[in-house]
Amino acid sequence: MDDKVNLAEKLALLDGPYRPGIVGYYNDNKVAVATMLGEFTWHSHPDTDDLFLVLDGHLTIQLRDRDVELGPGELFVVPRGVEHCPRADEEAHVLLIEPRGTVNTGDAGGAQTAPEREL
Amino acid sequence: MDDKVNLAEKLALLDGPYRPGIVGYYNDNKVAVATMLGEFTWHSHPDTDDLFLVLDGHLTIQLRDRDVELGPGELFVVPRGVEHCPRADEEAHVLLIEPRGTVNTGDAGGAQTAPEREL
Repeated sequence: MDDKVNLAEKLALLDGPYRPGIVGYYNDNKVAVATMLGEFTWHSHPDTDDLFLVLDGHLTIQLRDRDVELGPGELFVVPRGVEHCPRADEEAHVLLIEPRGTVNTGDAGGAQTAPEREL
Repeated sequence: MDDKVNLAEKLALLDGPYRPGIVGYYNDNKVAVATMLGEFTWHSHPDTDDLFLVLDGHLTIQLRDRDVELGPGELFVVPRGVEHCPRADEEAHVLLIEPRGTVNTGDAGGAQTAPEREL
């Protein structure tokens, strides 16, 4: 983790959508990449904001009152405590930043909960 | 700051190299974009890591013992306390994440110190 990270190379190592892999750390945060396809789980993170940067493809971050549509080179920070549900109609490649230990499904849990793991 | 951010649109608002502009916040961190051209200042940040993600162009992050060469879609986290000096032989577009209040020239100060400002 002390060398540069090529995000495309790391994305190629992933084994399925919504199964993020950690590519580095910034202070107490994990920097992760994920592919997204289909709908995730409605959830929130009571203790942290959640940063999404779309690298490739298109991602809809559904909020309870609106949808945020992201294309390549667009980012959105979901404020702490705000319910959201990512959805990608075609595969999207996404960079994520969250504190270490943050569970991908937040307060919702369920079948899409993925373990933290480094790529 | 509660809507999505198009990084290319924000980069177009910058008025010169090494004068970052804040495009959002993630917890206690600022998310900024900067253009880089030429050599910056050798400096370090004693209290924080420093995340660089190259969006376009090429950036050399000079460390005292080696150079880290970054192209588009490549990131590097300079660990806290590590002296570094960015250099771009052609203009590079870069995403930066640092804690709010972090000075761009770190412990070095000098003419390239830029005020924090939002785009």
